Amino acid sequence: MREYVEIGQGREARRSFDLDQISLVPARRTRSSKDVDTTWNIDAYSFDIPFLSHPTDALASPEFVIEMDKQGGMGVLNAEGLLARHADFDGAIEQVLNARGDWLMDEQGEAIRVLQELHQAPLDQDLLAERVAQVRDSGATVAVRVSPQRCRELAPALIKAGVELLIVQGTIISAEHVEQGGEPLNLKEFIGSVDVPVIAGGVNDYTTALHLMRAGAVGVIVGGGFNTNDEALGISTPLATAIPDVAAARRDYLDETGGRYVHVIADGDLRFSGQAVKAIACGADAVVLGAPLSAASEAAANGMYWPSAAAHPRFPRGEINGGAEESGSLEVILHGPSTSVYGEQNFVGALKRAMAKCGYTDLKKFQKVDLTVRY
Amino acid sequence: MREYVEIGQGREARRSFDLDQISLVPARRTRSSKDVDTTWNIDAYSFDIPFLSHPTDALASPEFVIEMDKQGGMGVLNAEGLLARHADFDGAIEQVLNARGDWLMDEQGEAIRVLQELHQAPLDQDLLAERVAQVRDSGATVAVRVSPQRCRELAPALIKAGVELLIVQGTIISAEHVEQGGEPLNLKEFIGSVDVPVIAGGVNDYTTALHLMRAGAVGVIVGGGFNTNDEALGISTPLATAIPDVAAARRDYLDETGGRYVHVIADGDLRFSGQAVKAIACGADAVVLGAPLSAASEAAANGMYWPSAAAHPRFPRGEINGGAEESGSLEVILHGPSTSVYGEQNFVGALKRAMAKCGYTDLKKFQKVDLTVRY
Amino acid sequence: MREYVEIGQGREARRSFDLDQISLVPARRTRSSKDVDTTWNIDAYSFDIPFLSHPTDALASPEFVIEMDKQGGMGVLNAEGLLARHADFDGAIEQVLNARGDWLMDEQGEAIRVLQELHQAPLDQDLLAERVAQVRDSGATVAVRVSPQRCRELAPALIKAGVELLIVQGTIISAEHVEQGGEPLNLKEFIGSVDVPVIAGGVNDYTTALHLMRAGAVGVIVGGGFNTNDEALGISTPLATAIPDVAAARRDYLDETGGRYVHVIADGDLRFSGQAVKAIACGADAVVLGAPLSAASEAAANGMYWPSAAAHPRFPRGEINGGAEESGSLEVILHGPSTSVYGEQNFVGALKRAMAKCGYTDLKKFQKVDLTVRY
Amino acid sequence: MREYVEIGQGREARRSFDLDQISLVPARRTRSSKDVDTTWNIDAYSFDIPFLSHPTDALASPEFVIEMDKQGGMGVLNAEGLLARHADFDGAIEQVLNARGDWLMDEQGEAIRVLQELHQAPLDQDLLAERVAQVRDSGATVAVRVSPQRCRELAPALIKAGVELLIVQGTIISAEHVEQGGEPLNLKEFIGSVDVPVIAGGVNDYTTALHLMRAGAVGVIVGGGFNTNDEALGISTPLATAIPDVAAARRDYLDETGGRYVHVIADGDLRFSGQAVKAIACGADAVVLGAPLSAASEAAANGMYWPSAAAHPRFPRGEINGGAEESGSLEVILHGPSTSVYGEQNFVGALKRAMAKCGYTDLKKFQKVDLTVRY
Repeated sequence: MREYVEIGQGREARRSFDLDQISLVPARRTRSSKDVDTTWNIDAYSFDIPFLSHPTDALASPEFVIEMDKQGGMGVLNAEGLLARHADFDGAIEQVLNARGDWLMDEQGEAIRVLQELHQAPLDQDLLAERVAQVRDSGATVAVRVSPQRCRELAPALIKAGVELLIVQGTIISAEHVEQGGEPLNLKEFIGSVDVPVIAGGVNDYTTALHLMRAGAVGVIVGGGFNTNDEALGISTPLATAIPDVAAARRDYLDETGGRYVHVIADGDLRFSGQAVKAIACGADAVVLGAPLSAASEAAANGMYWPSAAAHPRFPRGEINGGAEESGSLEVILHGPSTSVYGEQNFVGALKRAMAKCGYTDLKKFQKVDLTVRY
Repeated sequence: MREYVEIGQGREARRSFDLDQISLVPARRTRSSKDVDTTWNIDAYSFDIPFLSHPTDALASPEFVIEMDKQGGMGVLNAEGLLARHADFDGAIEQVLNARGDWLMDEQGEAIRVLQELHQAPLDQDLLAERVAQVRDSGATVAVRVSPQRCRELAPALIKAGVELLIVQGTIISAEHVEQGGEPLNLKEFIGSVDVPVIAGGVNDYTTALHLMRAGAVGVIVGGGFNTNDEALGISTPLATAIPDVAAARRDYLDETGGRYVHVIADGDLRFSGQAVKAIACGADAVVLGAPLSAASEAAANGMYWPSAAAHPRFPRGEINGGAEESGSLEVILHGPSTSVYGEQNFVGALKRAMAKCGYTDLKKFQKVDLTVRY
Repeated sequence: MREYVEIGQGREARRSFDLDQISLVPARRTRSSKDVDTTWNIDAYSFDIPFLSHPTDALASPEFVIEMDKQGGMGVLNAEGLLARHADFDGAIEQVLNARGDWLMDEQGEAIRVLQELHQAPLDQDLLAERVAQVRDSGATVAVRVSPQRCRELAPALIKAGVELLIVQGTIISAEHVEQGGEPLNLKEFIGSVDVPVIAGGVNDYTTALHLMRAGAVGVIVGGGFNTNDEALGISTPLATAIPDVAAARRDYLDETGGRYVHVIADGDLRFSGQAVKAIACGADAVVLGAPLSAASEAAANGMYWPSAAAHPRFPRGEINGGAEESGSLEVILHGPSTSVYGEQNFVGALKRAMAKCGYTDLKKFQKVDLTVRY
Repeated sequence: MREYVEIGQGREARRSFDLDQISLVPARRTRSSKDVDTTWNIDAYSFDIPFLSHPTDALASPEFVIEMDKQGGMGVLNAEGLLARHADFDGAIEQVLNARGDWLMDEQGEAIRVLQELHQAPLDQDLLAERVAQVRDSGATVAVRVSPQRCRELAPALIKAGVELLIVQGTIISAEHVEQGGEPLNLKEFIGSVDVPVIAGGVNDYTTALHLMRAGAVGVIVGGGFNTNDEALGISTPLATAIPDVAAARRDYLDETGGRYVHVIADGDLRFSGQAVKAIACGADAVVLGAPLSAASEAAANGMYWPSAAAHPRFPRGEINGGAEESGSLEVILHGPSTSVYGEQNFVGALKRAMAKCGYTDLKKFQKVDLTVRY
């Protein structure tokens, strides 16, 4: 049933689609936006809106994360970011902004270099615990991202500091990581060993997603969260294909376990509200927002944006750039009112409106809305 | 017979096409343009040319609508636009133009904000009646657009003021709108309750179109009339697919009723005469023109253009920009002579010429012209 | 066997391809360019190279046509161009160039207007005969283009003046043109009535081509020779589909007549030598060059280019612009040596080289070279 | 099993794909980059990394080739380049750079002209031998490119001077070249007559590749190494199709000979590390890098790049431009660390990382990684 094409003699490739190629088709009685419910429940946690913030220092100071919670979403701290390495977080961010200069393309390399340099500073676990405590003390849900490489090392202290949701996120992960002579990472063992629910990713395919589900993750992240993986690695995630694939794993795992529902979370360097809507229409339960939130006055880097992978010491990916044209408070970006005709503001309004126009009032059923595809 | 593709495991999407992907194939004896008949009859009204103007304040002052009638087409007033809210209509338009500044992209948000603000002024039914009367007194056909939300409230006074054709137009509508605790809108009841013919839309699909036809509409509008719905909502209308779909509903409804022919009207932010030709070739009976008419010296906003949805208070869509490169009188834009090689002028000449080159002299048969598609 | 797709319910379109989507595949023993024969024989005339010049005033002064002959190709005068209306041809061209100004897009309309105005001058048959005689006296083959509208009127004097090949060319023509109350044009009768061979076009499809062949044309032109027909009329000619279609008509007509071979001539606003090569590879016997030749120092308009349809009084098409980046003599553009890496010079060298690389030494067999297509 | 489409009546074309349309799918247990082996063995020679440098004067001074060897790859001298014609190689390069001026497009023709002129200088075999000796004396593997036209003439002296690998490379070659009245080149005879292993190319298809393998080549180059062949000749090499095709020839030849493995080397004007990764994923054993290496401080032309075919006296192809945004040492470009998010540096790191993410540790197995394709 999959669509395959022979690209050359004896070599097949599976056909895949980007979100920008698909559109929703309103074909039922329209509903009122006011009747739409966007509540997202994952494990014991409930959020008013199905949006997470990308774990990058460009967004996520503790203050930003607290505000994200206030607006109904899940803010995520990056346990291995600048905020865990520099007591003067603002000063560190300032250095990146200065290096980026006037946003001309050719200054990108210099900004990346500064970002890499700032990440050479050692991770300060006390500082990290302090940041986590600041979020916890506000009453907000405490979600923190760790890399697969360091999750075993950092998890105990993070949980002690109050982390409620642990997000094990690398560009691409698998349930088992094999290393000659080193200790392999078995996520099943790790997840079994911690007391908090774990979200894991990113993945691109059905099989890896199913393995992560079997390893005990409560949520699986689809996609890498940035846009230059294809140029750099030859690996990309066409989300309109990858989301349904992982949603198929969710369905099969639900059947296999007689009821365990693992959430599918899309993280694909989305820029516009219509893309977030499409991600959910393809089967995602929640969506990670990065660049669009950088236009919020509460964002840590004053409108500049880069994903966490941009700081990789030898192989950075993801551009360092301004995020959106129109700026405003996080509230405006998430809940409107918008003055952007391109869908850079009022992400929640867009979702509610799209659902209502298509005749749906709850997220789960909306995952079955009719789609068209252009090619 | 529909073309579906599996975009991901267990998720299908219907393949769709834009007008820009198709072209006409002249494959019969050529005819003379002079022999082409472009008359468009809808209900009791007859127009020399199958073109309507988009109901936006950027075009439609009463004077513009009167001139549109004089040129053979149908001009449409927006009952909920600035012209019904500000006695000094020109002054209001002026404020938008000033906010748009030197047409740089980043001033778009400010112009949208001013447009939104000006729409906060209350709707003045007396002023509206005066505008309608001005058109009626000229002898022109009086067509007015109302939103589905306010059609029941505004219709009686509008009809009393002389409206001959009522256009119930939202971005996306359905025959029934459901709202918890509120009063649902049933278009069948509404249309049955008014004494004038009703055109309704926009729709994107066969089913909704058929419902509107069964609700008694004399015309159904396909498409949303602006171009940023996909970025903002994830909903777009690939017209080369949507027009034939709605034309199929027209055919089936004709058969079901033994003869009621409901008109298909395309409204898709068309820019060039070739696109208008293609819309008719795909099955439309008439075409709404917006941006191209903004280059007319008679247009209300002096060359600037925005669709009515750009004024939405919380979720604006549709850019606010200059419309066409070449300017001239409305007569030149519709009937030529043209000095634009890109099809920005002489829309009627283009239609006649295309029909003649393809060997057709009437609009209905031309809907069956051979097409090619590129992808 | 044709490829059709349902673009919407009940509406099919035939799939078509542009030359830019295809490429040649060298899969035989390579040959030497020196062994390649590019001779093109049509009727009693023989040309060293299968290239014609587009009949536009931007190229074709009598001097240019004579030089085209000298370089081995067929130069074509436009019997209805400025050169037949203005004794001071250079002065007329100068006016167009001045109006085009500094080649900014927005001055295009003004240049078109001047072009239209200059074409209002009446056609001077004596002046035309003089231009034709100038070419004839040089010993060059005399080919002249007339429109279908005026061919009956102009042919006798043209033939008397020495025309050897008559090219009846409109944007889109058919073997019979029907006009109410007027006299229909029946090309069969016309061709039967003149003593010189007639090439006719442009056509886009098999049927019209076959009719022209049956009408007695010795050559059929595929395509319209300019690039804005799609924006303006919704009609375009995807040459990689249209050329094989017309070549199929050539084959069927050859069979039907037991040996009459009608030449297929591609005229599609080609810019680069690779496109000319592909046109022949698709089945063309010869190719019309327009814009690339405008970079020749011998071209009438000093590097500016417009197709003849740009002068249409009410419905101009085809941009008025500079043609190619690199300039040189007509000899350099046709025969090299080239300094352009983009295929703007050495069109004959490109053809010979491509044929040799693919293992062919004559044009007819080269029409069967392997192709790939991208989409 | 091949995919063919009828582009027009009676004319078929094979569907083909570019590398940019495909992506890798990580679907196995991830591995550590440290466990990845990138060793490439061809004939008796072993390289740490599967990368060759394109034989252009823009890169390959003897010093550059020596450094390429030091970094683990194969540097290739161009036996017919400026370095074999001008004792003052740096001065010759300087002239090209000056002609290219400020890198504006319109100065490209002038730079090409100077390049052509400099290539008019006669080939100095003593100078060439000296260059070769310089590489040989460093202990680096000595690989030299000759054209098919001159390979018989130049090979003896080259081998005497110390060449260990001979690369017979033209834009497009075949195992036999036929020339009327001249002496045909039979590569089988030539390869049989020399004492060093021969790599030959470029080819685009299965058949020609198989013939080269049967002629005795130890490696076959797929593609032409530059990007303007399509505009100029109508011939292009969609690598995602051509590489598997030639890999199929490798497999069939392996079977036919009971074990002779001929290497497939991709040379397609690649710009980013992700493209090099994809080339190997499609079946290549090694990849030629051109433009990306021009950003190395060791490159001969200080950041400017052109392929060897840009110097063709009558028919140049391949742009003359700057190569990459980010510059650094050859070591940084090949091994990192990178500050470019677009994959312009750390090509080896990218390959190792992509292999590890996809769960592979050796190159041969990686040729079977799952692929997706977008269209």
